[in-house]
Amino acid sequence: MMIRQLFDKESSTYTYLVADRAAGVAALIDPVLEQIDRDLAVIRELGLTLTHVLETHVHADHVTAAGRLRERTGALTCASAAGAPCVDVRLGHGDVVRIGEIAITALSTPGHTDDGMSFLVPGAVFTGDTLLIRGCGRADFQNGDASQLYDSITRTLFALPDDTVVYPGHDYKGLTSSTIGEERASNPRVAGRDKASFVTLMAGLGLPPPRRLAEAVPANRACGALA
Amino acid sequence: MMIRQLFDKESSTYTYLVADRAAGVAALIDPVLEQIDRDLAVIRELGLTLTHVLETHVHADHVTAAGRLRERTGALTCASAAGAPCVDVRLGHGDVVRIGEIAITALSTPGHTDDGMSFLVPGAVFTGDTLLIRGCGRADFQNGDASQLYDSITRTLFALPDDTVVYPGHDYKGLTSSTIGEERASNPRVAGRDKASFVTLMAGLGLPPPRRLAEAVPANRACGALA
Repeated sequence: MMIRQLFDKESSTYTYLVADRAAGVAALIDPVLEQIDRDLAVIRELGLTLTHVLETHVHADHVTAAGRLRERTGALTCASAAGAPCVDVRLGHGDVVRIGEIAITALSTPGHTDDGMSFLVPGAVFTGDTLLIRGCGRADFQNGDASQLYDSITRTLFALPDDTVVYPGHDYKGLTSSTIGEERASNPRVAGRDKASFVTLMAGLGLPPPRRLAEAVPANRACGALA
Repeated sequence: MMIRQLFDKESSTYTYLVADRAAGVAALIDPVLEQIDRDLAVIRELGLTLTHVLETHVHADHVTAAGRLRERTGALTCASAAGAPCVDVRLGHGDVVRIGEIAITALSTPGHTDDGMSFLVPGAVFTGDTLLIRGCGRADFQNGDASQLYDSITRTLFALPDDTVVYPGHDYKGLTSSTIGEERASNPRVAGRDKASFVTLMAGLGLPPPRRLAEAVPANRACGALA
């Protein structure tokens, strides 16, 4: 299994390439519209065929490349059944997407949004905006729910082995990966904090709305189609 | 062995933490002054002691945190004997720095600057500005020499096994790692190009001077001491 992390500086979004080199096939998780040529160049230079595009949720801060990638490569788009209606494969908790010999298991992790999913591969988990490095996604729009988010982090993700590598959907400080053990011990949003304390903390963040919310959410519900 | 990649958005610099978790010791490669608190927090949260700071070269685009880290942690600073005179350990080609059970081997790779070094660990190489992903450092200041740079890339680095992971000193497009095999096949600066063609290409780049050249080079020759 090859994992390649890709960064979009404008939105601080991480996209991930997950590939079975021997089988010559790959998936992209959370691709960004503006980076489609970069990502397709990486895939081409590695001699891979893109078979699947997975979304961790309907994003509010960037527009997905999923639909455009489907048009250009024939890849299947995959996301939570609670998410964008445009996708080809509507996933539920425990569903598996196969990329050659690699099983990608969908874990339902709502709370940042109501369609939040994390994607588990052997030894690593792609956590979208549910769990960030020493942080987590906000829960104050798109049917976010801090109580659900707390459960998704502490019950679903923290049930994984300590040495599971955490690949988040964003980072704003230049951190690129973590582990479940590190986040359980050192994530200031949840370490040593009960659900009530977390919900109070999240309610008091006082963040401005995401800059691209009005544009990105409807575009992403249409797999990136811009009006 | 744990490798953790860290990014400074301002200068698009990658810093690397290389740690022997069992022994509880770590090195930082190319730390950035403005990120010292972030990097020390990561080291502390992982329960590690910083024993060495390694520089791939005297940088012209950011100021190193090496001297400040030495003051705060007692770590030894290490760089090419041809580089900053302030360091504790002056490395030559083939010298080894030990981080617990991990051997970091210094490879002399001049050309971007005359003191360029790459650092080899099992399965991966930290290439500084000698080899970037699908690119390379410029060779038009700080005693840079395109002919030397070509040899450093094609003779020293490309002599490593194809599956060696390449961790560069910078990336400007959001790419985070590559492999020697990929760069040999797809790096447009060197793939299928002889030395004469490379030298001509590099001479014609017409790049403006690095923004922080006048400030950064003298500061970095003093391990980050600012006037």
